[in-house]
Amino acid sequence: MNSPEKLRRMAHAIRFLAADAVEAAQSGHPGLPMGMADVATVLFSRYLTFDPKTPGWPDRDRFVLSAGHGSMLLYSLLYLTGYEDIGIDDIKAFRQLGSRTPGHPEYGDAAGIETTTGPLGQGLGNAVGMAIAERILNARFGNDIVDHFTYVIAGDGDLMEGISQEAITLAGHLQLNRLVVLWDHNGISIDGKLELSDSTDQLERFAASGWNTSSCDGQDAEDIARAIDAARESDRPTLIACRTTIGFGAPTKAGTSKAHGSPLGAEEIAGAREALGWEAGPFEVPSDVLDAWRLAGLRSATKRKEWEKRLAALDPETRGDFERRSRRDLPSGLSRAIESLKAQIIEKKPEVATRKASEMALEVINDILPETVGGSADLTPSNNTLTKTLHEIAPGRYDGRYIHYGIREHGMAAAMNGLALHGGLIPYGGTFLTFSDYARGAIRLSALMGVRVVYVLTHDSIGLGEDGPTHQPVEHLAALRAIPKLRVFRPADAVETAECWQIALENKEGPSVLALSRQNLATVRTEPVDGNLCARGAYELMAASDEAVASIFATGSEIGIAVEARRQLESEGVPTRVVSVPSFELFELQSPEYRRSILGEGTVKVAVEAGIKQGWERFIGCEGAFVGMTGFGASGKIEDLYRHFGITAESVVSAVRQMVNTND
Amino acid sequence: MNSPEKLRRMAHAIRFLAADAVEAAQSGHPGLPMGMADVATVLFSRYLTFDPKTPGWPDRDRFVLSAGHGSMLLYSLLYLTGYEDIGIDDIKAFRQLGSRTPGHPEYGDAAGIETTTGPLGQGLGNAVGMAIAERILNARFGNDIVDHFTYVIAGDGDLMEGISQEAITLAGHLQLNRLVVLWDHNGISIDGKLELSDSTDQLERFAASGWNTSSCDGQDAEDIARAIDAARESDRPTLIACRTTIGFGAPTKAGTSKAHGSPLGAEEIAGAREALGWEAGPFEVPSDVLDAWRLAGLRSATKRKEWEKRLAALDPETRGDFERRSRRDLPSGLSRAIESLKAQIIEKKPEVATRKASEMALEVINDILPETVGGSADLTPSNNTLTKTLHEIAPGRYDGRYIHYGIREHGMAAAMNGLALHGGLIPYGGTFLTFSDYARGAIRLSALMGVRVVYVLTHDSIGLGEDGPTHQPVEHLAALRAIPKLRVFRPADAVETAECWQIALENKEGPSVLALSRQNLATVRTEPVDGNLCARGAYELMAASDEAVASIFATGSEIGIAVEARRQLESEGVPTRVVSVPSFELFELQSPEYRRSILGEGTVKVAVEAGIKQGWERFIGCEGAFVGMTGFGASGKIEDLYRHFGITAESVVSAVRQMVNTND
Repeated sequence: MNSPEKLRRMAHAIRFLAADAVEAAQSGHPGLPMGMADVATVLFSRYLTFDPKTPGWPDRDRFVLSAGHGSMLLYSLLYLTGYEDIGIDDIKAFRQLGSRTPGHPEYGDAAGIETTTGPLGQGLGNAVGMAIAERILNARFGNDIVDHFTYVIAGDGDLMEGISQEAITLAGHLQLNRLVVLWDHNGISIDGKLELSDSTDQLERFAASGWNTSSCDGQDAEDIARAIDAARESDRPTLIACRTTIGFGAPTKAGTSKAHGSPLGAEEIAGAREALGWEAGPFEVPSDVLDAWRLAGLRSATKRKEWEKRLAALDPETRGDFERRSRRDLPSGLSRAIESLKAQIIEKKPEVATRKASEMALEVINDILPETVGGSADLTPSNNTLTKTLHEIAPGRYDGRYIHYGIREHGMAAAMNGLALHGGLIPYGGTFLTFSDYARGAIRLSALMGVRVVYVLTHDSIGLGEDGPTHQPVEHLAALRAIPKLRVFRPADAVETAECWQIALENKEGPSVLALSRQNLATVRTEPVDGNLCARGAYELMAASDEAVASIFATGSEIGIAVEARRQLESEGVPTRVVSVPSFELFELQSPEYRRSILGEGTVKVAVEAGIKQGWERFIGCEGAFVGMTGFGASGKIEDLYRHFGITAESVVSAVRQMVNTND
Repeated sequence: MNSPEKLRRMAHAIRFLAADAVEAAQSGHPGLPMGMADVATVLFSRYLTFDPKTPGWPDRDRFVLSAGHGSMLLYSLLYLTGYEDIGIDDIKAFRQLGSRTPGHPEYGDAAGIETTTGPLGQGLGNAVGMAIAERILNARFGNDIVDHFTYVIAGDGDLMEGISQEAITLAGHLQLNRLVVLWDHNGISIDGKLELSDSTDQLERFAASGWNTSSCDGQDAEDIARAIDAARESDRPTLIACRTTIGFGAPTKAGTSKAHGSPLGAEEIAGAREALGWEAGPFEVPSDVLDAWRLAGLRSATKRKEWEKRLAALDPETRGDFERRSRRDLPSGLSRAIESLKAQIIEKKPEVATRKASEMALEVINDILPETVGGSADLTPSNNTLTKTLHEIAPGRYDGRYIHYGIREHGMAAAMNGLALHGGLIPYGGTFLTFSDYARGAIRLSALMGVRVVYVLTHDSIGLGEDGPTHQPVEHLAALRAIPKLRVFRPADAVETAECWQIALENKEGPSVLALSRQNLATVRTEPVDGNLCARGAYELMAASDEAVASIFATGSEIGIAVEARRQLESEGVPTRVVSVPSFELFELQSPEYRRSILGEGTVKVAVEAGIKQGWERFIGCEGAFVGMTGFGASGKIEDLYRHFGITAESVVSAVRQMVNTND
């Protein structure tokens, strides 16, 4: 074991890599890495199970730097412990364009970065999801295969964000005892001392939600180790308040907000070198210290090899299941099962809400995919997310596949990111579409990281009726479509809903939103076709009876209006086609020829969607008409609302007539 | 004082109005009104200071039904206590289109509704703002004029939402002892028993943030009164856990999630009538009970009259200030001061970030408007929100005008809504534009309610540089412009920033976002002009040297790129105009003639903004070119990023050239 003096020097290596990298970039946050260097050194050299040579080892401990602005702490650790992705040149390139060491840790930029952090509180929320994933997979595959900890370093800011409360209360409720949060309790925020804005007793707060809590001197290796030892034995998740000095070692700035988020300056860094007795130059690590770190990085190699033997010794079916899930591949039966479901729907033509259609799809999916983990933010009977064969995860009982997330939309989304990041599971979770606003911070990170999370967002328009404008999404489809790399689906009937579910599950590289109706909708896809039409993003649902004069574009519940408008127009002798647009994003991926064929050049164009127009120019151009919302909704019966806001077949017909007459 | 038996019958009146209204609408939430009827009866008949005949009385106690789904509780109280806006016919029209009694309480639909609630946790956040407002105004105007309580009814859902933690910790920190939260502790959520998803000891949790806490039997008037009496004497904000039975009185559904959000059914309601001995028919209130309620509504009339006398007795200046603020009028000097600031800027032509320009404007504004209350979510030195003459509000010291909101964006936004709703104050608060995602739930409500809140959102693009994609807004301008009734401003220099501030303050009827740069920008408005050009939404910043061939539209930091592109194009013989677009929303309010003149028919069009294209078709049509972002940002130096993403004068010039050549 490393001597206290060696541990101190190992920590100093982090401190000066961080201070010097921030100084070189003239940008960044030296305060946290310098303050938490001792805690991180103890964790990474004595406790954390990981293998830099096999960073994707599924049974590694997870480490989340929730306080992502302290990214140099993580980059230093990855470099020092021997991850190949981060060499000293990467450290020198900190915060430069194209480097593997951006301002905040970005998932995918380098092995060892378990999640993207920076927006505060998110990492803590991810870690709760990771810790849930560990328990679920442990229940499925046993201690031999899945048995690890999730460690988090969180700052004061993480704990002030509301999302932290959602994460903490969920973790406490579920008794996730393999979750350990190391709180950088330095008492400093950007505005100054934390006491300017907060007086919370965090230990008491965490205890109120069933956490084990303790404190340590975050600058004393033995005290840190004592606290981690105890945490690992607890039957509850643990918060360790690590009392630290922000910017530890900086002679005049340590312990002040000046050390938080700006370069310390050459003089201050020189002073720190003197104060801490660190003689190595910038980006130099004395060989004894680097050796000690590299040895720390080798600590778990044997453990990893033993684990691989245990995996190899599993029965082929279990091993195959584990390996398939780890590769994020789907089992072979999904596409056949969805085809069969679609055939049944086409035969029976049910009039059901798409939220109900989603449940029908999930009944099939959850039977075939053992890796799905469903849930809802306390709207299970409204989101239709719980299928017959799923049972619930409960405190101390993790062999279920359904999570009652509680009224915690943001925490749910962050936990789902963590479930997906952990690997082995595909999370989906429900709330109302309008409350995507509450979860938006985490939804954006699903997209930025490119993780497979499915958001089941029901009650997707004024069609929800009496709950009124607070509950009626109006701008939400546009606002979600605005997020890069997020796929937003709004299926029109049970067939499209099944297709959209299939696409969402088959996309390993990113999140999907399913926007689903509360109200019943007729089956409009009444004829069997080959393949998944929704995968084209938009497709001709109904052709015109003759050379098309008008094209009506619609999504979801407004397809019914489009179909009725077409009927009227055709009866008036206006050949009209209807294009269903389940996904803007997928349409953009199609060939130019296909897109042209769908856009219907030369026809007059109307789009109808019970939301705002923003973004629809892509389909109807600047001359087309839009039938939808221009402001907030209202409380009332669904039929009154559609009439009141003029979202009717008559409006569509009249818009077409007007344009046809103008063009004449 | 009413006898216990009379109080019970008064509560029953609420219960049956609620149950019958929900039944008639076949939609709504009977559970909370029936469970909390006793608590509400005690509060409204014994404690709450209010006058239904003068609902806008500034010194009334504020009552917030944070659990807005229980709206029939509030509507019943307003009807019973004699508010003229809510008659029995309004109760009968519950949840119907055009009624004053929508599904959730909507601010502005009827007097007595202090805020719009429904999205959980928001009302609690508003109440914290109201309680802060009360203390600030008390410090300014004294006990004789401002001295009241803020009472909240909150449900389990309110307390599970993360925003509640932000609200609670802020209130506890600031020792807002006139804030009393009555928690409907019924142990039931939509998914079933609360214990399915939560194990938090709420009393301990609130205590951890400095709250006074107590419990009472929520069905026992005397016990409720005892708890409220104690709360009113506390030197801290108080949480009272009111143990209640959801749907109290319903024979088979009480105490279960079945009573929460669906009509009880005729049989169940008949059973409740029998169980509670209530013989009056639907929508009937026995005259003795209605009399008792109406008397409760008259309780504070004398107090109100005495208050009016005290107000009249104030010195004219103080009274004038109070009355002006209550009318939400601005003092006369603002527009002159802004003109003078603009003149100074035009003279000196500083190269400053618009966040700095915002500070320059605020220095002027805060001196003239005593009603502004600034703040930041722990980014004061980055948002530039604290001006020289403001000092801070602190625990027990409320004579300041600056709030360190802490790292609580959502809580800040909700509190600002409460500050604005209270009256007498104009709140503004800062965070990074990207973290508007965290506050979006509350920003939407600012817009829906139409309250004057100013969001100071700095670091508004990839121009923030090294912090990288988590911190770089890309879709946020589009996503905020999507919210109905929200004005989004992106000023281009210090002159425009001053103008946008003026517009934001002069708009009594809604919120504004100021999107501000981190990086320095040249002054582009170098000539004095009459009036406020930004008030037109878009205007010609630079005319073409000859008949215009090209129009470049830009906002904020990209105006510099537009100006440089124009220079190059003009030098190539392409007469080019530059249009600055500080606000899409205001542009839409201009005359068709003005809009046509700005859009530059017949010219080729390019827009440049360091965000996504969505929405820009309004200016550039479907043929125009857009220079901006198509995906997430990256970490790097600002100049590298602009070059990397092709947001340059060269890109604009090349787009114009291409279109001009195509058109030839």
